[in-house]
Amino acid sequence: MHYERIVPPLGLLLCLAGLGMLVPAIVDLATANRDWQVFLTSAFLSGGIGAFLFLGFRNRRPGAWNRRDGFVFVAASWLVLSIAGALPFYFAEVRMSAADAFFESVSGLTTTGSTVITGLDDLPHGILMWRSILQWTGGVGIVVLSVFLFPFLKLGGQHLFALESSDTAEKSFARFEEYAVRILLLYLLLTMACTISYDALGMTFFEAVNHAMTTVSSGGYSTSDLSLANFHSLPILWVATVFMFLGGLPFMVLLFMFSSRRRYFDVQIVWFVGIILACVVLILITLNLRGDPVNATTFTTVVFTVTSIITTTGYVYQDYGTWPVAALLAIFLITLLGGCSGSTAGGFKVFRLVVLVAICRAAVGRLLWPNAVRSMKFGNQIVDDETVIAVTAFFLLYGLTFGAGAMVLALSGQDALTAITASATAIANVGPGFGSTVGPVSNFAGLPDFDKIVLAFEMMLGRLEIMSILLLFVPGFWGE
Amino acid sequence: MHYERIVPPLGLLLCLAGLGMLVPAIVDLATANRDWQVFLTSAFLSGGIGAFLFLGFRNRRPGAWNRRDGFVFVAASWLVLSIAGALPFYFAEVRMSAADAFFESVSGLTTTGSTVITGLDDLPHGILMWRSILQWTGGVGIVVLSVFLFPFLKLGGQHLFALESSDTAEKSFARFEEYAVRILLLYLLLTMACTISYDALGMTFFEAVNHAMTTVSSGGYSTSDLSLANFHSLPILWVATVFMFLGGLPFMVLLFMFSSRRRYFDVQIVWFVGIILACVVLILITLNLRGDPVNATTFTTVVFTVTSIITTTGYVYQDYGTWPVAALLAIFLITLLGGCSGSTAGGFKVFRLVVLVAICRAAVGRLLWPNAVRSMKFGNQIVDDETVIAVTAFFLLYGLTFGAGAMVLALSGQDALTAITASATAIANVGPGFGSTVGPVSNFAGLPDFDKIVLAFEMMLGRLEIMSILLLFVPGFWGE
Repeated sequence: MHYERIVPPLGLLLCLAGLGMLVPAIVDLATANRDWQVFLTSAFLSGGIGAFLFLGFRNRRPGAWNRRDGFVFVAASWLVLSIAGALPFYFAEVRMSAADAFFESVSGLTTTGSTVITGLDDLPHGILMWRSILQWTGGVGIVVLSVFLFPFLKLGGQHLFALESSDTAEKSFARFEEYAVRILLLYLLLTMACTISYDALGMTFFEAVNHAMTTVSSGGYSTSDLSLANFHSLPILWVATVFMFLGGLPFMVLLFMFSSRRRYFDVQIVWFVGIILACVVLILITLNLRGDPVNATTFTTVVFTVTSIITTTGYVYQDYGTWPVAALLAIFLITLLGGCSGSTAGGFKVFRLVVLVAICRAAVGRLLWPNAVRSMKFGNQIVDDETVIAVTAFFLLYGLTFGAGAMVLALSGQDALTAITASATAIANVGPGFGSTVGPVSNFAGLPDFDKIVLAFEMMLGRLEIMSILLLFVPGFWGE
Repeated sequence: MHYERIVPPLGLLLCLAGLGMLVPAIVDLATANRDWQVFLTSAFLSGGIGAFLFLGFRNRRPGAWNRRDGFVFVAASWLVLSIAGALPFYFAEVRMSAADAFFESVSGLTTTGSTVITGLDDLPHGILMWRSILQWTGGVGIVVLSVFLFPFLKLGGQHLFALESSDTAEKSFARFEEYAVRILLLYLLLTMACTISYDALGMTFFEAVNHAMTTVSSGGYSTSDLSLANFHSLPILWVATVFMFLGGLPFMVLLFMFSSRRRYFDVQIVWFVGIILACVVLILITLNLRGDPVNATTFTTVVFTVTSIITTTGYVYQDYGTWPVAALLAIFLITLLGGCSGSTAGGFKVFRLVVLVAICRAAVGRLLWPNAVRSMKFGNQIVDDETVIAVTAFFLLYGLTFGAGAMVLALSGQDALTAITASATAIANVGPGFGSTVGPVSNFAGLPDFDKIVLAFEMMLGRLEIMSILLLFVPGFWGE
């Protein structure tokens, strides 16, 4: 462990958080809300501590990170930023409890989008803005981590997405300098395009900016308790669908979509689109069987809802909790699945499903032709032994974490539907579950503090590929 | 494909089925029930066709099986026997529909134990006996398959249990001759011991024989609609618990328990016992938290129920559907898990969980020490690449089959609880699910025929390691 290598970037992140807090401070100042003082104080606190950490450790020669440093940084950055992000919730006019503030901040930074606040529509603009900023930052943060750091750390088989052979930290940093700015620009571009579209279709500029920030980040926070149902507009749903979908695609593919560098094509996308279409068709069939008319509204709602859930955004237009059981099962399954790796989306991730299917094909092949050794493929890449082990381990850990979360919630007194779907929506960073407590038209405010902390922890596990946090609790980790 | 190698043993199995039908014929004759004619006719039909197949194909020189022959035999044997087994249900006094008869027969042969018959207590003894015989045969059948054939076929990683290196069919047959009789004797011994114990504790001899046959086979059919609740006896529950537990252990371990051949020790057992204890403690805690008194009855019920579910027997003493949610989640998870490989129990099987945990440990190790290559272990055995792929593929296929089954049931109109737990209990060959339709004190009779066929197919998939059936639908299977 090299604290002198990790602490300065953490300090830098806190400084950025402080800078970010100036935005809601300005918003509140402009709208004459007293919360501007809270944001300014939080900004100074966060920025001050950040600057202290950055400057205090900067002088020593850093040297390159090893993998342990990477793991600690991943976990520490999300934890530190979550605590900093909770400050405004705790001190501002909304006066949230510590557990609520922490939950809301974690739910924001992990782009989950489950909220414990009721009465969003009447909230000061500053605090609404802060929620959106948390998600927007969390979204681009996870893209950056998954492009530059996760392949190097080989987390959950993500080294399939190494830009080149990424065995050294130096190369990671070199690529970081090459691509990070472009990724950020693309992200800004998407956000602006989304803002303009929302604005043109009838949202106020403030609403448009906030929703754009939580759309491209697969976040799902809204400025209204009704989520997108507040706007009664099918075109707005289509805009949201398009940008959620883009947010669920691997960013490196978006970046090179118009270039000739075909090696960035990603087989995940084919599956991702296929699964969305299959779900839409299935749900339309179930609705039609029930006797619902399949018109433009129904079609739009279904496409929007499926995209919202599979990209782990979690916007709600209609209370899909009343859909037929088969449709709900499909929604539950894509809740756990999630979007593409390298995107802002969370969940199990499509690429792991693709790898598992490749493993199945290999298993069938070996049963039929035991002597013919053929390699497994992910697109054009060979799925090696290490990837198989990493993906399988992730599969089990994802299931166990989900199950353990549901079990703890059940032990704390939740009903089965709430326990199971709240745990699923937390680990997959989606937002809404099912049932009267955590369903599409409900709110996580009704849960006891203990449950909120459990869910916040699960959100972080899910967002950071589980292993990066669990590793810190392995006895051998700190030993050497 | 070598039909001349597969058809004679299938014919032999049909002859055995015919012989088996003579038992209920005698029982019905002794109790002066007209069904004896049905059983005798069925016996002649089944035995006649069997003899025709056996003799008609026997003359050609068989030669050794290849793996394709093995797969076809596994699927065909269960299908053929299920159809033969359904004959008495269809023609006897109970007059079941074709779908019901097939369901009851499959549920018996796969040792699932879900029934579509109401009024078991008033049924003729012959038909009750036939249900028990189906389960008893299915139980020892799966033990024989998993000891001799599955390792050779390398199904789902079962080659971990190869008695020796079992690459050739000849060796499998050689071992078959060496051990099959001993396994059958042990199975008989267990059944007799169980019968005597039940009888001594107050069951009639008929009840004792039937329940013994469905206990050691992890079957779960009862002679009463109330299952074991019919007897109001804690000692009987303990006897059932002990013999269900023994039925859930690998038979080769039971066989060599008192020998010095320690290499048959199986690490599954440690996990199996550990999981049972953990579940018992968890459920007792949830019951205690709810305010239930934790006395001898509660303790016995919980130990009995956990053993009944994890061994995939499915006996019911108390309506555990009313237990707290966390307890139900635990029950649901051990429903899917099941018992040890090489036993009469079904489910995902403990050894695959052990292998998955070993894979997780390996994944953690590789993240922390990327250059230290250490092999994965299952007990003293090395988990090779092939096992990893087979177990992972099984994990995915098991999940997908379970999910697809639940989805189909939901589409056909079942509520979520019924769809999900019926699918789970079918693929794991347990018996009862949850809810008012398929719960512990309910009955599968209320399901539409379509759902019964789906569940019967799922039972077969689960019983025969999924892959052995799915393979038959792979285009390449029949090609070469």
